[in-house]
Amino acid sequence: MAEAVVTVDGWSALHDTRQFDWTSWKLISKEERQAAIDEFQQLISKWEAVEEEKQGSHGIYKVVGNKADFMFIFLRESFQELEQIKTEINKTKLGDFLIPGYSYVSIIEKTMHDPMKAGEDRELSAYVKEALKPTMPKWEHACFYPMARRRDPGVNWFEIEKEERTKLLYEHGMTGRKYAGKVKEIITGSIGLDEWEWGVTLFAHDPLQFKKIVYEMRFDEVTTKYAEFGDFIVGNFLEKEELSNHLSI
Amino acid sequence: MAEAVVTVDGWSALHDTRQFDWTSWKLISKEERQAAIDEFQQLISKWEAVEEEKQGSHGIYKVVGNKADFMFIFLRESFQELEQIKTEINKTKLGDFLIPGYSYVSIIEKTMHDPMKAGEDRELSAYVKEALKPTMPKWEHACFYPMARRRDPGVNWFEIEKEERTKLLYEHGMTGRKYAGKVKEIITGSIGLDEWEWGVTLFAHDPLQFKKIVYEMRFDEVTTKYAEFGDFIVGNFLEKEELSNHLSI
Amino acid sequence: MAEAVVTVDGWSALHDTRQFDWTSWKLISKEERQAAIDEFQQLISKWEAVEEEKQGSHGIYKVVGNKADFMFIFLRESFQELEQIKTEINKTKLGDFLIPGYSYVSIIEKTMHDPMKAGEDRELSAYVKEALKPTMPKWEHACFYPMARRRDPGVNWFEIEKEERTKLLYEHGMTGRKYAGKVKEIITGSIGLDEWEWGVTLFAHDPLQFKKIVYEMRFDEVTTKYAEFGDFIVGNFLEKEELSNHLSI
Amino acid sequence: MAEAVVTVDGWSALHDTRQFDWTSWKLISKEERQAAIDEFQQLISKWEAVEEEKQGSHGIYKVVGNKADFMFIFLRESFQELEQIKTEINKTKLGDFLIPGYSYVSIIEKTMHDPMKAGEDRELSAYVKEALKPTMPKWEHACFYPMARRRDPGVNWFEIEKEERTKLLYEHGMTGRKYAGKVKEIITGSIGLDEWEWGVTLFAHDPLQFKKIVYEMRFDEVTTKYAEFGDFIVGNFLEKEELSNHLSI
Amino acid sequence: MAEAVVTVDGWSALHDTRQFDWTSWKLISKEERQAAIDEFQQLISKWEAVEEEKQGSHGIYKVVGNKADFMFIFLRESFQELEQIKTEINKTKLGDFLIPGYSYVSIIEKTMHDPMKAGEDRELSAYVKEALKPTMPKWEHACFYPMARRRDPGVNWFEIEKEERTKLLYEHGMTGRKYAGKVKEIITGSIGLDEWEWGVTLFAHDPLQFKKIVYEMRFDEVTTKYAEFGDFIVGNFLEKEELSNHLSI
Repeated sequence: MAEAVVTVDGWSALHDTRQFDWTSWKLISKEERQAAIDEFQQLISKWEAVEEEKQGSHGIYKVVGNKADFMFIFLRESFQELEQIKTEINKTKLGDFLIPGYSYVSIIEKTMHDPMKAGEDRELSAYVKEALKPTMPKWEHACFYPMARRRDPGVNWFEIEKEERTKLLYEHGMTGRKYAGKVKEIITGSIGLDEWEWGVTLFAHDPLQFKKIVYEMRFDEVTTKYAEFGDFIVGNFLEKEELSNHLSI
Repeated sequence: MAEAVVTVDGWSALHDTRQFDWTSWKLISKEERQAAIDEFQQLISKWEAVEEEKQGSHGIYKVVGNKADFMFIFLRESFQELEQIKTEINKTKLGDFLIPGYSYVSIIEKTMHDPMKAGEDRELSAYVKEALKPTMPKWEHACFYPMARRRDPGVNWFEIEKEERTKLLYEHGMTGRKYAGKVKEIITGSIGLDEWEWGVTLFAHDPLQFKKIVYEMRFDEVTTKYAEFGDFIVGNFLEKEELSNHLSI
Repeated sequence: MAEAVVTVDGWSALHDTRQFDWTSWKLISKEERQAAIDEFQQLISKWEAVEEEKQGSHGIYKVVGNKADFMFIFLRESFQELEQIKTEINKTKLGDFLIPGYSYVSIIEKTMHDPMKAGEDRELSAYVKEALKPTMPKWEHACFYPMARRRDPGVNWFEIEKEERTKLLYEHGMTGRKYAGKVKEIITGSIGLDEWEWGVTLFAHDPLQFKKIVYEMRFDEVTTKYAEFGDFIVGNFLEKEELSNHLSI
Repeated sequence: MAEAVVTVDGWSALHDTRQFDWTSWKLISKEERQAAIDEFQQLISKWEAVEEEKQGSHGIYKVVGNKADFMFIFLRESFQELEQIKTEINKTKLGDFLIPGYSYVSIIEKTMHDPMKAGEDRELSAYVKEALKPTMPKWEHACFYPMARRRDPGVNWFEIEKEERTKLLYEHGMTGRKYAGKVKEIITGSIGLDEWEWGVTLFAHDPLQFKKIVYEMRFDEVTTKYAEFGDFIVGNFLEKEELSNHLSI
Repeated sequence: MAEAVVTVDGWSALHDTRQFDWTSWKLISKEERQAAIDEFQQLISKWEAVEEEKQGSHGIYKVVGNKADFMFIFLRESFQELEQIKTEINKTKLGDFLIPGYSYVSIIEKTMHDPMKAGEDRELSAYVKEALKPTMPKWEHACFYPMARRRDPGVNWFEIEKEERTKLLYEHGMTGRKYAGKVKEIITGSIGLDEWEWGVTLFAHDPLQFKKIVYEMRFDEVTTKYAEFGDFIVGNFLEKEELSNHLSI
């Protein structure tokens, strides 16, 4: 029996995608539309206050393609807050037009496997503490995808030695570091919480970097041999001020 | 041909998820909404009376993410009662807004495989009797997922010896015991009843414990080699008194 | 090339599941609802007449869980009749509320593989003749699931010798016989007709027996090595007289 | 690298299934319903004229089970015509009630692999010419299913020698010939056009023959080892004159 | 660890399919329909202006079969533009009838693996530069499908040597060149962006050529051993002037 690596856990995460019901939106009056936008911007302002107080973080994205129209990403201390946010969105007037779609529930985690720091793993550095409760970068694009590790005969991530897993993840991390300044990432664990085992949220100024980093990482042994991927969803960052214009008709 | 282990069976279980139709809910009057909530709370009171008389148990959860808005879990003596409950919900006014989603049908089972008790298996202890007809803990969070055992060439759970299966499940149980006080579980069998082979319902005060226990168990040989998992759904416990506030707009 | 076993074929079967649109049902008047129920009960009476004349058989089940609200099972001489029944249901007033869901099309078959009767297979006994055109038992519960046999390299049902297949199915039948009086089954073939290769319809007084027989059979070599299963659906028998009460609001 | 076999290609094919919206159909007046039927029968008459002029062929089927209510099969010279037919159906009044469902796009093909005719393959016989642009038999039942050939390590249809493929397909054809007079078939290729690699359309007077031929063929080595199947859909032939009665309420 | 090949990247691509809601379209007045068409043609004119200025390219296709009614293909410099186009379509009156369906997000890429040019790969020829920002041919038919390369034990594209991958892709390219003048193709990369790894968009005067080229390529070792395919969608080119007629009723 292989040994589990130690993880430390941070904020809970909800990725919540919505289709926008444009046809119904056009049926209500201009005044009703403006009121709905105003109310929703106040909700966003509330989320901004939470972020300023370092009690959570969020991002709103305009999704490219038809998988969804919006992707909301929320980081919060508790599952109670994540559920309340979903319900709060649904209770707003704009919520009537935000048809719930694919979502993902997970918890930020850092795996304590850096061989450089063996022995002192449990002492969380300021860097790790910040990474567990991060303020998401307001970069132009975000990408989310879930993934799992294979448990097939002969290719079973959970059967190989902890040292081997640590080494493979370390190499993988080295690939990621090449993209410093171009791609930021938040890793969340979803074993026991949602369909796959981990969620990956990437941020970039240029979406081409999503393709470049995920392509290059596909040649890392840990990915080549052990990774299974769910679907990818990409969006463009939406400023609160932009909402009115985005929904104007 | 391998030999089946002996199981003892308890109450039948229905996990019933519902999407809430907020848009239509806002269209009816405040009085109609209140009447719908009052009627539904009376239904919950009826379920509570059943639970007090030890004739069944139930829990209502606010689901995190968009897979559903509510998850109802019902334990009852018979499939007749489970079907009646579903129909009773649908007949209420609130039922008009509770769009049926994913559900799961199973029966509580205890596998008589504890090597400590070999020989005396069929004498059900008070502990086992209670476990077959349990009152579900009113803890803050619940998690449900279905699973199956692999029947692949060379990795076939149903082909290995009963002793080996017993040993692997015993080790697995030892992992579970580490979470005493943090996670409670109810195992239900669904072979012949629903899509997967078993259902697992977990309860916790802190949803992080769902991630921790399922992650740690993934390294148990029985899981690493033989387990296949369905989707996971997590919810926050809803008090009857909370319903009115939860649905207020 | 392995040799196909000989089968004899009986009535055609349609398993037809429906969601009930309770929300719309509540919108029509009590009189309209009663008229719809009366009309549908007359349709059921027509089916009962067919059954009395041994020209077919049927059963109506209240499904447990949200996969469906009703499961209709029809056995008829021809595909023409099966299609007419479906269309007849859709033309009734109640049909407006019976949203079509999952269905399955197959033909009752008996495989002539009993080694006890080798040589005289083609002489159909009265028992087999009855089994090909059976009147379904009006027992409290029914369970339906489709299945297929594996055609993987090294584990290929259609590649092994006819004698081996016969032996494995014979052993499988022996497991089934242990449940005499508790479980009745109808096997239908769907190769060339629907998604899987065979359909299994089980009847029981106690749904726990579905779990017990399918679990025990999972250890039969024919299942352990060669079986793939579709989804399972379980329902409670609905008496014609019960319909009015079941749909009253 | 294995060599591709030579194929000759004929008419393009569209299998187009539709759900019928009975609930809305009942809401319009009897006169509107009759007008919709009349208009649609004129469209069918147009298709009949095309068939008489040997410029195409078609069949309309009442589907057994809930996968669809109608299956239309169209054979035409070009993809332009197939798209126009779809759009023409949608533009009719009846089209408002014919909800688009599963469809399949392919092109009739004959594989020139008969070892009896090696050398003279490219001289198309009158028989082959007819088979490439056939008039579909107006038999009582049709069955459609798509399929593919495996490309797994060790079991890779596209890796084995052309001679071996030819031999396996020849044997497969011999099984088919046993059903002469009972089953007719049209093979269409869909590589590059739709989800699977080939489509099979079968016609029979008795649907039991669909089960018999597909079951027997499952023991042909080409199927046992190399075939993957999509879903099967079976329908009963609908005469133009029958439409009015079929849709009367 | 195998080495990634170098790619150069061009315009971003959005394949956006839509179902057309004919039933609702018939409910609005002839004048409203004409106004909707006029408005949409102005939008197309805007896209044409972008194409003339070599800032992007587009094509509109009438889909054969029921997977969709329209497929829009857009090539643009940025993901911002792709999202704006989607939203712009949704804001038009015609957008109310263009129900969003399957879509695909990717970026044009050229793999620098031609063994003839080893060493000078990074000097982009005029040919490559044009290929990265192409004007799509206005040919009669287009076909889109996504694909991936296998990462199975023993058959793992990302594990084999770069030279081997280069050789296999070179041979694959040779098959493609046989179709010069008959089939044009645009390869887009979607690793990190959408569900599969690459997208293939083919253009032809005769859709039979889609079947021929994809069939012949299936015998290329790179496909036989390593390719996995998503679904295929085929459409007929729609001229702007044709829109009014296409939507007339």
